[in-house]
Amino acid sequence: MNDVTAPPARDLLATTLACTLAQDHVADIVETLNDQDTGTVANVLLDLPFERAVEVLDQPELVEAAEALSLLPDQRAAAFLSAMSADRVADVFQDMREPVRERLIAQVDHETRSALTRLLAYPEHSAGSIMTTEFVSVPNSWTVAQTLDHIRHVERSRETVYAIYVLSPVTKALETAVPLRRLISGDPEAPVASVVAARKPIRVTPDVDREDVARLISKYNLLAVPVVDASERVIGIVTVDDVIDAMIAETTEDVQKLGGMEALDEPYNEISFIRMIRKRAGWLSILLVGEMLTASAMQYFQDELEKAIVLTLFIPLIMSSGGNSGSQATSLIIRALALREISLKDWWRVALRELPTGLTLGAILGAIGIMRIVTWQKLGIFDYGEHWVLIAATVGAALLGIVTFGSLVGSMLPFILKRLGFDPASASAPFVATLVDVTGLVIYFGVAAFILRGTLL
Amino acid sequence: MNDVTAPPARDLLATTLACTLAQDHVADIVETLNDQDTGTVANVLLDLPFERAVEVLDQPELVEAAEALSLLPDQRAAAFLSAMSADRVADVFQDMREPVRERLIAQVDHETRSALTRLLAYPEHSAGSIMTTEFVSVPNSWTVAQTLDHIRHVERSRETVYAIYVLSPVTKALETAVPLRRLISGDPEAPVASVVAARKPIRVTPDVDREDVARLISKYNLLAVPVVDASERVIGIVTVDDVIDAMIAETTEDVQKLGGMEALDEPYNEISFIRMIRKRAGWLSILLVGEMLTASAMQYFQDELEKAIVLTLFIPLIMSSGGNSGSQATSLIIRALALREISLKDWWRVALRELPTGLTLGAILGAIGIMRIVTWQKLGIFDYGEHWVLIAATVGAALLGIVTFGSLVGSMLPFILKRLGFDPASASAPFVATLVDVTGLVIYFGVAAFILRGTLL
Repeated sequence: MNDVTAPPARDLLATTLACTLAQDHVADIVETLNDQDTGTVANVLLDLPFERAVEVLDQPELVEAAEALSLLPDQRAAAFLSAMSADRVADVFQDMREPVRERLIAQVDHETRSALTRLLAYPEHSAGSIMTTEFVSVPNSWTVAQTLDHIRHVERSRETVYAIYVLSPVTKALETAVPLRRLISGDPEAPVASVVAARKPIRVTPDVDREDVARLISKYNLLAVPVVDASERVIGIVTVDDVIDAMIAETTEDVQKLGGMEALDEPYNEISFIRMIRKRAGWLSILLVGEMLTASAMQYFQDELEKAIVLTLFIPLIMSSGGNSGSQATSLIIRALALREISLKDWWRVALRELPTGLTLGAILGAIGIMRIVTWQKLGIFDYGEHWVLIAATVGAALLGIVTFGSLVGSMLPFILKRLGFDPASASAPFVATLVDVTGLVIYFGVAAFILRGTLL
Repeated sequence: MNDVTAPPARDLLATTLACTLAQDHVADIVETLNDQDTGTVANVLLDLPFERAVEVLDQPELVEAAEALSLLPDQRAAAFLSAMSADRVADVFQDMREPVRERLIAQVDHETRSALTRLLAYPEHSAGSIMTTEFVSVPNSWTVAQTLDHIRHVERSRETVYAIYVLSPVTKALETAVPLRRLISGDPEAPVASVVAARKPIRVTPDVDREDVARLISKYNLLAVPVVDASERVIGIVTVDDVIDAMIAETTEDVQKLGGMEALDEPYNEISFIRMIRKRAGWLSILLVGEMLTASAMQYFQDELEKAIVLTLFIPLIMSSGGNSGSQATSLIIRALALREISLKDWWRVALRELPTGLTLGAILGAIGIMRIVTWQKLGIFDYGEHWVLIAATVGAALLGIVTFGSLVGSMLPFILKRLGFDPASASAPFVATLVDVTGLVIYFGVAAFILRGTLL
């Protein structure tokens, strides 16, 4: 036995914890363990009854599972891993370091190992990568009574028994899915498939994205979706609680991307300083470089700036209004695309809708902008010079143009990203703002040149 | 019978549709009907078999349920409503116009009406408002066999039978929850509660927010959570599919708020122009008024601006970097708060983390900013004047200060909003950017005054 895997000395804390925790709900045990160091977690796992420890390890919420298992004697770790559900074992192995990982993979039982090899081959975030291989299936020749009897036997080792998959006895292809609730009220002697209307069940292939699986489960109010291979054989199921976890992870990703950064992929509390900087500095630098175009644009308009320094006062205000209207439109469209309320081909309908919306919003903001200048001038708070009426008109017209432009760009950007094969959620508020800023300046100075030519300019 | 409720003339389209749809999955029927006008939907409901029509109406995804029911003869509509699940009826009535609503409420059966009165009294987005009153409960004196027999009888009229609530026969208080999977493998003659470990089940009161219900269901991997009153009597259950719908709605709200607008509360495709403008114009106007402080700040620095017009070139770039770093920090913290990774009391730990993060990010951006000025000057692309080294230093130092400040403000704003009782998700990217912009200008001109005093200023 290797040194690395020597069990840590059992400590009193771990034993006491194990005693107290044995009665708790498994989710609460996990919460307590997540606050402990890895050594304590490993000791608690040794002190808990075996079945209970497996239950705890089966929770995806247990953060240090891989590290804790690495600290246990190989034999014990392998026993735990063989008893855990295959999809969870796959996750744990992905977090585990070599050489422990390789050594443990060699020691888990045959069934777990072959399930593992398949699961690890599926792309990240696919149905295959989140599915469990522990489900109930029976041949269509069985009766209701036979099936119920089978469920009673395997109940404890299956993630869900609420959907039973009925297979062709010859090809093993999926024929139908029978909910347990129908089964228990069916005639015991009738064939198992007779309790439901004959209909191909909703099913997915292993490469389907977890977001699409979530959509199906939510649309059809399912408790699980079977995952089938090319010959329609069931190779696993995705259950509703896997989907909820996936939905929460997707939402976190989307919100972080919308904030203008890469998705962290780990809790804010736990990510290291270096990784946090990496996830945030990239987009910030890209946006800064993009925003440098504003400096170039302003260098281009330097003559106008020198003649009419008063114009600079409104640059931040006008640019941010464009960014804000763009960020609104982007978040609306990202969400509508995610919910499939609209699809790629609807881009022109959205554009036709955002155009009048942007014009109206721009008119409202333009009016507020004009009111501000008029009020400050009339009340004597600030003197915008003899051409203050023209300046007010310039600011009003620029706001109208920029807000309209911002709404259009903000609403079209997610479509363009999706069309180019990127995640539309990458169209973050800062990204849109940066895109709109440069054009916003050009619009502002264009409007100013038109209105103020011959007076200020 | 009233004119308003006269059924629309049956059209061929509706009859054909009903025929085709009768075999489809109910979620697919709903999808097809959502593309039809209300008259056709009403006719299809009349043409479908009664049970099937009820199933269709029971789907929360059917947008025009209230309008279609209003078009049907009162008697038929009341029959549908009485057969539908009470929580869905409550939703439908909330969308229905008077006087049809009042007339139909009077005609639904007694059971539905009393459930309805209770459901409509709960606050929006609470467990009470999304719960269903159709669940299975049995007294603790029953045996496993008795309970299974009962389930067989009521199965078709209950939203879920996978959790059976065991009550005290005297007080009717909830004692435990028994999953059906355990029940079917239990000894038929044993008391129903004997198949699980005695433990108070996870439960909520009706005023608990739907987000917290979702968190419990996700944490404990439940299929349903019972809702209990003050005496621990079960008054309803929230099922996992209600929770998924609620999670999707919450995510939509959060994304839209993060984009800097009020949550739409209806699909992008279906909201009217006026309502869309209302939801978007409010925040845009508030942000514009806030952003006017930048004009005031720049008026204050007018002397400096006139002396060193070259400083204006970098205003957009510097301000947007502050906004971007703030928006990153805000979206991170909003999400970490929503996931309960951090709580209100962790604000100082977050601040201590964001300070070095902001300084590092600011140093990176500051370096990029300096490089840009040096490169442009050296390559002769633009001449920043004789003091270009000092200008580069000013821009670099300002970026460092503003990005640090942005990260701090962006991370603290959600805490402040939460502390004041607002939704932390209201701390939108545009809101943070506006907050940071004004201070950003002050920092920029402060740094400039310090570095350029005696040369340019």
